[in-house]
Amino acid sequence: MPLTRISLARGKSPDYLRALSDSLHRTLVEAFEVPPDDRFQIIHQHEPGEMVFDRSYLGGPRSDDFVLFQVTAGRPRSTATKAAFFQRLVERLAEAPGLRPEDVMVVISTTGIDDWSFSGGVASMVQDEVEGR
Amino acid sequence: MPLTRISLARGKSPDYLRALSDSLHRTLVEAFEVPPDDRFQIIHQHEPGEMVFDRSYLGGPRSDDFVLFQVTAGRPRSTATKAAFFQRLVERLAEAPGLRPEDVMVVISTTGIDDWSFSGGVASMVQDEVEGR
Amino acid sequence: MPLTRISLARGKSPDYLRALSDSLHRTLVEAFEVPPDDRFQIIHQHEPGEMVFDRSYLGGPRSDDFVLFQVTAGRPRSTATKAAFFQRLVERLAEAPGLRPEDVMVVISTTGIDDWSFSGGVASMVQDEVEGR
Repeated sequence: MPLTRISLARGKSPDYLRALSDSLHRTLVEAFEVPPDDRFQIIHQHEPGEMVFDRSYLGGPRSDDFVLFQVTAGRPRSTATKAAFFQRLVERLAEAPGLRPEDVMVVISTTGIDDWSFSGGVASMVQDEVEGR
Repeated sequence: MPLTRISLARGKSPDYLRALSDSLHRTLVEAFEVPPDDRFQIIHQHEPGEMVFDRSYLGGPRSDDFVLFQVTAGRPRSTATKAAFFQRLVERLAEAPGLRPEDVMVVISTTGIDDWSFSGGVASMVQDEVEGR
Repeated sequence: MPLTRISLARGKSPDYLRALSDSLHRTLVEAFEVPPDDRFQIIHQHEPGEMVFDRSYLGGPRSDDFVLFQVTAGRPRSTATKAAFFQRLVERLAEAPGLRPEDVMVVISTTGIDDWSFSGGVASMVQDEVEGR
């Protein structure tokens, strides 16, 4: 149920973007309690000057390869789960596409399970309840 | 008070985008307790590879016409209201611009009423309270 | 800890965008309890028709210079703090880049402090707790 917006500077190859997407998704499945087919991501590629970030606040040094992952989750996860997800994500991204851990920032927001309609106009996670079944 | 980000693949006509916008807004007014003049939407058109989505998770089959609506609401709505909104939205979008219900995904996030300033630097929904009136 | 998405119509100069960014950040530091180095913003520049907004709902008149600031905060702020932030933001933006207060809209969303990893795969604000220290 997560939806992730991935923001980075324009200029990377299609293979690089696919590796970003794959590594994120594998980590969500492995460490964030996400089903394998539950894959929804939007990539935003930005022009020079459109990504504004401090190079060293609480980490870094961040480079021009900086990537921001903004995850909207469908239900809460524990602090321990989130922390393990953050750690595993940078490991996988270091493997592919070869992103430095210092260049990875993640922000999670949480909604309710009745906030999602995946398709067809149904409240996907609570449809039985809605229909009084 | 909702703000909606609409994400889709680049390549549709201005008329198509306007129909997406109109059908969303009419549904918000009709089924999500939104005033007729309360219309704020941002459309993000994406290049190939920037929208990553499973073709069949909890619905579909999704096509290249897939559209994601991410709605930020100003106050909570009931599960029944959300479910009715989802259903009505796909009906209206099927009428115009002719979008298949299988290609419609919606995610709602909720804020507080003091989280919005519509214009002029005022806390639009709570300004009387802020000023001690 | 805030992340802000700034949306406006394409066509402004790099200097204009930098002034938008600077004025936002100074206001966050001054009025929203944000550390000076905690600066993370994403600018989205939009084509004609991609920004849909009512010209006069709860304020305005909004012009083609309309700018939307969507702030994701790391912890709650009081209603008074939010209201003061809104007010100070339009003052600073009027100074630079010279944006009319009527053209400024702000929406705040709030997360938990364990929802942020700034860099390096650590749960930046709760790492001591995560590691049992």
